[in-house]
Amino acid sequence: MALTLNTKHVKNFIADHELAGMIPQLQAAHDTLKNKTGLGNDFLGWVDLPVDYDKEEFDRILAAAEKIKQDSDVLIVIGIGGSYLGARAAIEFLKSPFYNNLKKDTPDIYFVGNNISPTYLNEVLSICEGRDVSVNIISKSGTTTEPALAFRIFKKYLEDKYGVEEAKKRIYATTDKARGKLKELSDAQGYEEFVVPDDVGGRFSVLTAVGLLPIAVAGADIKALMEGAAKAREDYAVCDIEKNDCYRYAVLRNILYRKGKSVEMLVSYDPAFTMMAEWYKQLYGESEGKDHKGIFPASATFSTDLHSLGQFIQDGSRVMFETVVDIKKPKQDLFIEEDASNFDGLNFLANQNMSLVNRKAFEGTVIAHEEGGVPNIILEVPEMNEQELGYLIYFFEKACAISGYMLGINPFDQPGVEAYKKNMFALLGKPGYEDMQEELLKKLD
Amino acid sequence: MALTLNTKHVKNFIADHELAGMIPQLQAAHDTLKNKTGLGNDFLGWVDLPVDYDKEEFDRILAAAEKIKQDSDVLIVIGIGGSYLGARAAIEFLKSPFYNNLKKDTPDIYFVGNNISPTYLNEVLSICEGRDVSVNIISKSGTTTEPALAFRIFKKYLEDKYGVEEAKKRIYATTDKARGKLKELSDAQGYEEFVVPDDVGGRFSVLTAVGLLPIAVAGADIKALMEGAAKAREDYAVCDIEKNDCYRYAVLRNILYRKGKSVEMLVSYDPAFTMMAEWYKQLYGESEGKDHKGIFPASATFSTDLHSLGQFIQDGSRVMFETVVDIKKPKQDLFIEEDASNFDGLNFLANQNMSLVNRKAFEGTVIAHEEGGVPNIILEVPEMNEQELGYLIYFFEKACAISGYMLGINPFDQPGVEAYKKNMFALLGKPGYEDMQEELLKKLD
Repeated sequence: MALTLNTKHVKNFIADHELAGMIPQLQAAHDTLKNKTGLGNDFLGWVDLPVDYDKEEFDRILAAAEKIKQDSDVLIVIGIGGSYLGARAAIEFLKSPFYNNLKKDTPDIYFVGNNISPTYLNEVLSICEGRDVSVNIISKSGTTTEPALAFRIFKKYLEDKYGVEEAKKRIYATTDKARGKLKELSDAQGYEEFVVPDDVGGRFSVLTAVGLLPIAVAGADIKALMEGAAKAREDYAVCDIEKNDCYRYAVLRNILYRKGKSVEMLVSYDPAFTMMAEWYKQLYGESEGKDHKGIFPASATFSTDLHSLGQFIQDGSRVMFETVVDIKKPKQDLFIEEDASNFDGLNFLANQNMSLVNRKAFEGTVIAHEEGGVPNIILEVPEMNEQELGYLIYFFEKACAISGYMLGINPFDQPGVEAYKKNMFALLGKPGYEDMQEELLKKLD
Repeated sequence: MALTLNTKHVKNFIADHELAGMIPQLQAAHDTLKNKTGLGNDFLGWVDLPVDYDKEEFDRILAAAEKIKQDSDVLIVIGIGGSYLGARAAIEFLKSPFYNNLKKDTPDIYFVGNNISPTYLNEVLSICEGRDVSVNIISKSGTTTEPALAFRIFKKYLEDKYGVEEAKKRIYATTDKARGKLKELSDAQGYEEFVVPDDVGGRFSVLTAVGLLPIAVAGADIKALMEGAAKAREDYAVCDIEKNDCYRYAVLRNILYRKGKSVEMLVSYDPAFTMMAEWYKQLYGESEGKDHKGIFPASATFSTDLHSLGQFIQDGSRVMFETVVDIKKPKQDLFIEEDASNFDGLNFLANQNMSLVNRKAFEGTVIAHEEGGVPNIILEVPEMNEQELGYLIYFFEKACAISGYMLGINPFDQPGVEAYKKNMFALLGKPGYEDMQEELLKKLD
């Protein structure tokens, strides 16, 4: 098991001495992270989380998931950012992007509170009609606008449908351990509660209750997920660029950035990875995109997007590099049969598995893009199971922290996310923001 | 009705004389397009398509859509690139991203043949179990690997399920009018046939049978869609930057590109627009991304992605500008009720529609991003119906052509898409590609 970094197709863009030149910085980033002396060092809970987590809570998560599986046709997960992307990405990766369309013995799972679209919310409400519903509200403060609004609506929905007492048993709150509006309400109502740890930022929270409860409801083995992450934690502890793929990836992307590559495209050849790329975009964009620095994180799913962004990657502005997640074994395969008439001329593909065609598309593309001037970093992932996903999640998290320290920023804050919120509150007339309103209205005029 | 360009939040980044300085180039691009004297002038069929289309075929599309609605629970649309994105984007925009999950009186629609994932194809096959199925295969040549493979499998699936004769009546082929493997097969089998016009490239083909049949099956009014496009064709015929929003948009994005903005983010505040942004990414990426030039097209759906890419946009590398699609009226609204306990502190939002909150998020974000140094071009779209969508599609298509001519490239070819295909064929041992294989294998070793 375990991910392997393949750097064959980036070697033509980076000389060996460039890697050597980065080692002192890598060592410094490693020490900073390990000794907890760097920017944002209050948010390093994710580092040891795969081994150092609350086992009692973990068992309660499993029990809650079982109850939800028993008494619900639909689980509504309410959250935004890190309280949305990790769980959804893991479920699509482990189960399917068609999870809600497939026949299965686990509840459908819909994510709300990650936008302010009334159409979207109405549609999910209509999907719930006539079905048994539970809700997992995930919010540290309980006052983030998007999830709070959605929860207000779904709380009332459950109370109208089941009565106040039964509704309380169908609401699961993942929130701060001690403070906040949602914590107060949960205590008062007696909701089953889970904790968003203080020292784990939203985008690093998928392996806490934030991600684990929805993932468990989907029928995935969250114990194996944690084990995979724990193995990565061990494997990536050593500060040796030859032995530590995670660190080598962090170094390579910093070198490419300093050579003028301003966009990283995270690419896969399986549609089930698409939401994982969205998770990666938050992790890296929010961690590194500050102080007017950072690699812009983009993504694509091939071969779909070879017929959309493929032209640009092959021959457009030379601003990017690709990081390709190469999944060695798909969850299912499909044998291509020969057709006697060969009406489509495809018999040259017959008598083999479709996964082989996908593999040759990958290999052909890597060569083509490299020759087009796009460095390709390849992450080889053996298969799509819980262990490998846990491992991959930890790989990306630790590489992000090390990469961010090498960039010279605080990988764990997100001051820029507040700007739009403040303006929105002022424009909505929220108490305390009155002073800003007039000035903002002028800017819109 | 009709889209309006709002340039208030880009004015601080572009002086008036810069616009004036572009007018000769704009005029040249306009003349080149109008007189059909430019690069790629064999592919200008989309320009007059909204009025100059085959009315007999249009009626057959409507009739086929009715038949499919009558006799099918599921329509499988097989296509990739322009034979996939436009239809899917339009259906999500006009109906819903939850289209397949909602109760309705039209068939579910699944898109296959846009990737080489065996898992994906198996899952869609399992979703078809026990349901009545029709297939729309969309391929000009019939030999593009992804759709051809998927069609081979679904053709056999239909034949096994219904027998050869009934299967023929459930297959609709959108292909070349005269040539190619799929045309030959369709003639031989007597499939209902529709035409991919010779002078309309894939990414410009959504308003041909390529897009129209699936869109009509979803229950959308394709006549109104064409009328909207026809209105845009009229409105955008005049070469006057003051009167022509489409041309002004093309000029603005070229100015921003030349000032060093290398990424355009197409943003909306409605999840139903997300796939339209994917369509835009093909249209612009494939049209402009060549000769080592072009703006990298990215996208985001807010407020979802304000909690992922928001930090980067607000304060990361200053490489981007945003083009925001501001939909004035959502398809549905939702009234926010007061809660006596105000448990979440959200009563300041109560007694108004949720769409207003979304609007204030938009306004607050535009100001915040502008102040963060990100130019914001705003496209105001009155509502989400067929007319407006047709108008918007034509807006993007014509702006793309004009923009591409100003950039100095051929907006209508895609030579870079062939590179990976050739390598893939060689690696798969396709007859005729044997010479390349050995060399490629060395590069992978």
